[in-house]
Amino acid sequence: MSSEDFVAALGSAVEHSPWVALEAWRRRPFGSVAALQLAFESAMRCAPRERRLELLRAHPELAGREAEAGELTEASAREQQAARLDRLAADELAALTTLNADYGARFGFPFIACVREHSVESLLAWGRARLAREPDAEAATAIAEVGKIVGLRLRELVAER
Amino acid sequence: MSSEDFVAALGSAVEHSPWVALEAWRRRPFGSVAALQLAFESAMRCAPRERRLELLRAHPELAGREAEAGELTEASAREQQAARLDRLAADELAALTTLNADYGARFGFPFIACVREHSVESLLAWGRARLAREPDAEAATAIAEVGKIVGLRLRELVAER
Repeated sequence: MSSEDFVAALGSAVEHSPWVALEAWRRRPFGSVAALQLAFESAMRCAPRERRLELLRAHPELAGREAEAGELTEASAREQQAARLDRLAADELAALTTLNADYGARFGFPFIACVREHSVESLLAWGRARLAREPDAEAATAIAEVGKIVGLRLRELVAER
Repeated sequence: MSSEDFVAALGSAVEHSPWVALEAWRRRPFGSVAALQLAFESAMRCAPRERRLELLRAHPELAGREAEAGELTEASAREQQAARLDRLAADELAALTTLNADYGARFGFPFIACVREHSVESLLAWGRARLAREPDAEAATAIAEVGKIVGLRLRELVAER
């Protein structure tokens, strides 16, 4: 597959960051979806620090302003819906909005989690725990979460073809 | 480095499973700790399903019977202490004990999380959320958590040398 076709087919696995798919493509061929996912993760984790931070900043808030404005990517919208983030109770939305603001102010990128692994309760509890962490450790955790998200998306994209 | 020296130096990054380090060694050389971690993750994720389940079953419970019996590996003991799991309040310990039992009965392997990313509250909330998941998805999440644990341990082992 050409790099253009590869990025067109799988680039959406990473929010607004087609360079990750392009870097992953250089590591071809791939014997399995697991190997494909590892190539995407390798591209992200081995990228320069500033590029990793840009990648994190390209992610939307959970139940945040992008969701409210209808500006989520299709994949993000589906994931947030599956985690019930589009129909939160008022107190849950208030708690998540506060968390998003506190988290963004502390780390300079949004609170990112593989929401399909979570309940609303566990997302809120985890976000509060992560607020207490050091920025470098937290950025590594966020990249690992992006890796899980990418893995689930790649499985879907490959299955659809 | 010979495979023997490599496994002796880094095998303890994965609980009771030196075969992971041996598989990772085959992917040498490594330009960074990030690349080293990816090799360990690749070895785990590309292993046959039964071997992955064995790997999960080689992990201790959180604040469980291995901890009570003083049978944790040194790395596990340190991690559980850092997450305050060795000095839980009575109600927290009761909740985690119930969670461990329910989780083990449902999935056939222990509840595994990279505890350094968590508070006691978020671990309990996440464990309850994970109980509702499908076994295959949950095994993939558990392997991803082992990957994070391995990454933190490798950083320490490499820094000590």
